[in-house]
Amino acid sequence: MRNLTMMTDLYQLTMMNGYYKTGRRDTIAVFDMFFRAGGQINYAVAAGLAQVIDYIKNLKFTKEDIKYLKSLNLFDDNFILYLQDFRFTGDIWSVEEGEIVFPSEPILIVKAPLIEAQFIETTILNIINHQTLIASKAARVVHAAEPHKVIEFGLRRAQGPDAAIFGARAAMIGGCDGTSNVYSAMKFDIGIKGTHSHSWVMSCESELDAFEKFTECYPDSCLLLVDTYDTLKSGVPNAIKVFKELREKGHEPVGIRIDSGDLAYLSKQARKMLDEAGFPNAKIFVSNDIDENLIEQLKLQGACIDVYCVGTKLITSYDMPSLGGVYKLARVRVGDEVENVMKFSDTAEKMTNPGFKSLYRIYDSNNNMAFADVIALNGEEFEKPLTLTHTTERWKKTKLEDYNIRCMHKKIFEDGELVYDEPSLEQSIAFCARETARFWCEYRRLSRPHVYKVDLSDGLYNLKQELINKQKGEG
Amino acid sequence: MRNLTMMTDLYQLTMMNGYYKTGRRDTIAVFDMFFRAGGQINYAVAAGLAQVIDYIKNLKFTKEDIKYLKSLNLFDDNFILYLQDFRFTGDIWSVEEGEIVFPSEPILIVKAPLIEAQFIETTILNIINHQTLIASKAARVVHAAEPHKVIEFGLRRAQGPDAAIFGARAAMIGGCDGTSNVYSAMKFDIGIKGTHSHSWVMSCESELDAFEKFTECYPDSCLLLVDTYDTLKSGVPNAIKVFKELREKGHEPVGIRIDSGDLAYLSKQARKMLDEAGFPNAKIFVSNDIDENLIEQLKLQGACIDVYCVGTKLITSYDMPSLGGVYKLARVRVGDEVENVMKFSDTAEKMTNPGFKSLYRIYDSNNNMAFADVIALNGEEFEKPLTLTHTTERWKKTKLEDYNIRCMHKKIFEDGELVYDEPSLEQSIAFCARETARFWCEYRRLSRPHVYKVDLSDGLYNLKQELINKQKGEG
Repeated sequence: MRNLTMMTDLYQLTMMNGYYKTGRRDTIAVFDMFFRAGGQINYAVAAGLAQVIDYIKNLKFTKEDIKYLKSLNLFDDNFILYLQDFRFTGDIWSVEEGEIVFPSEPILIVKAPLIEAQFIETTILNIINHQTLIASKAARVVHAAEPHKVIEFGLRRAQGPDAAIFGARAAMIGGCDGTSNVYSAMKFDIGIKGTHSHSWVMSCESELDAFEKFTECYPDSCLLLVDTYDTLKSGVPNAIKVFKELREKGHEPVGIRIDSGDLAYLSKQARKMLDEAGFPNAKIFVSNDIDENLIEQLKLQGACIDVYCVGTKLITSYDMPSLGGVYKLARVRVGDEVENVMKFSDTAEKMTNPGFKSLYRIYDSNNNMAFADVIALNGEEFEKPLTLTHTTERWKKTKLEDYNIRCMHKKIFEDGELVYDEPSLEQSIAFCARETARFWCEYRRLSRPHVYKVDLSDGLYNLKQELINKQKGEG
Repeated sequence: MRNLTMMTDLYQLTMMNGYYKTGRRDTIAVFDMFFRAGGQINYAVAAGLAQVIDYIKNLKFTKEDIKYLKSLNLFDDNFILYLQDFRFTGDIWSVEEGEIVFPSEPILIVKAPLIEAQFIETTILNIINHQTLIASKAARVVHAAEPHKVIEFGLRRAQGPDAAIFGARAAMIGGCDGTSNVYSAMKFDIGIKGTHSHSWVMSCESELDAFEKFTECYPDSCLLLVDTYDTLKSGVPNAIKVFKELREKGHEPVGIRIDSGDLAYLSKQARKMLDEAGFPNAKIFVSNDIDENLIEQLKLQGACIDVYCVGTKLITSYDMPSLGGVYKLARVRVGDEVENVMKFSDTAEKMTNPGFKSLYRIYDSNNNMAFADVIALNGEEFEKPLTLTHTTERWKKTKLEDYNIRCMHKKIFEDGELVYDEPSLEQSIAFCARETARFWCEYRRLSRPHVYKVDLSDGLYNLKQELINKQKGEG
């Protein structure tokens, strides 16, 4: 595992040095990670926890790191000595990978000595922001494609190796059916998919020659790219010719891939040709700048597509390439008092939620579907019937008689030790699928989806009001 | 250095196995990497070559990789044996990092046994697409900010660790003045910048207390974040108080940072307050969702900003998060003949350029400014005076009497050996700045810039027409 200890913002180190110097290194602080509403994402699929765990476990400044930090002439010698033995000694709670989460919900909570909790901010944000973004985008694409499959094909367009490697993993959590990325497939035990490219065809004497050669090599996984010269006049007829030879030898083809042109028109024509030639089970794969909106449009036009190979738009989350998650102080000892703190703002939505919190999901017992989430203070109890109150518009209330409640946070680290039984990727994928099925599809609509209720408990709401009033009084 | 050998698309391996099996592994092929026009980018700053060199040097399938590939039951035993000793034995030419490049120009050319040239496609695209994208975005942001400085601040919003680490490096090539990313700063010897965050202020008894504590720690690099409570009523007055104390102790402050609110209004007011308090040299840094368009708008409104800290929008190239570079076969032995090949399309712009090519930049000797680029066949010669002809509209011609010509390609690998004298990052940064200065600013305008001429030589144009006519005749 890579040591990412130095992958942090300089200001984390300058603040740590400051906390150390001003005697506040052991002050216990609570930070929350969450993302704000906005952009294309109304719900997100949490991902990245496995890499955060690796990061925390591998936290260590090497001799080379220490030497470099000394050379900056910014830090005290005592602080540098302290860094030599630095490790994380606090607690971390987090939602599990594959969990459906919403704006302002604490995805991850760190309770640790201020100096440690501050330090790990940047890397946690980098990892969770990226992987949650891609898992969420994948979930949208997969939702649009259902019941057809989506394969992740974006390696060459990802923002560097990690974006590709961990992006492929996140895409699987979000519901993709496989990846073309060999590294990710090996590392994370993911189903691997592939065919051939135009250069294979161009390097052969003819398209037919190219298809025959490919089929000889892969008689049982024969998927032919048919758009190098002319999809309907050359590609599909040549593929059918080769498929017939293949069948005579006792094999069945997988299908064809179309990578250009109008995918609705071409797929319908190709389907007809394949069916008439006796290959109704040959599948049609498509690629070329596909995203969830195009998939919906293609389906509306009756496109005959079995598998969507999605590259650039998924692996970069093209229409919203950053989740913008933040990590905010919620509780800390200030002077002699432990205080719940929050960031103030002129906009209610931009204010953070103070205090040490927990996150719950309420399911309606009548149908077992998700009903609302509640952000509460840690330790708050829930009554039956339950009254849910809108986050800011407190006159909006809902009463629920029969419900189940689930705490969405798991304890991951306790006193710096990993106490979480890490699920396999397969388990996280299954968890996401199971949980997704408990959300009405109205919440997942691409355009103006129904807004899922995320409420503040009375305890948290009252604490927040108290702090706002105090700040206003003092301001 | 990381071994990225397995970071490839499955189809590269299935095609390699196919080339191997059909006796074409040693057929020499020429591939070009280039990007197409479109999106926000009219010119790009090449970056990523250093990482491509590392990748090629470290190409090696480990025992674990081989075991995994065997387990897929897709490949012949002989091919798997071949992979055990796989290395790159061909030639690579590339433009240098920091070079200004335009759509359809061959940024990198690979001439190698088909099986090898095919294999390295995906990883080269991943690396160059990402880093060139970020260097180009940085160049736009830096151009908008000139003469003010831009610092790269995007670590927490980058698409994973590599996107942050190599993105920071690419941003420097594009003209940024430093980064907050400690890892990148150490690894690539980049200037490192930072201050403190809102949590520092929130963890102290008051804003004034927070500023005093910070100043005690960093009397000579005192940059205070002034927007935690109220920028003009609290933040700036408290900063001035602390700056005065600092000056009494014989130090001068660096300045303040504003991270929210209206940056034009706040910076003008803050400038006035700082000037009146006797701190005309205290600099104003701003952050918060900044990009090149906002910078231009802020400048038009007379904002008093000295340094722009640019995060999300730069590190993800938010308005265009993928360059979309491609890698296309241009020449290969087909059967017994070495043939120049191209991809056909109904749109002239989407056709590729066939053959083994070179890329030249023509400078007007009268002013030493870049005049046009020419994509030519390798070995073509240029006459004086030079006649330049438009890529597709061949009636558009320009004659140039006095010119200098520079071949933009350097030989990087020869027979698999690195033959390129790698510049330092500092040298690449200087090269980019020098080359950028040789382009009229009209070419760099953000909205509808003047289009820089990129012409095809007569040799290349004629070859292309010949192939098109042949394809049409046969089609």
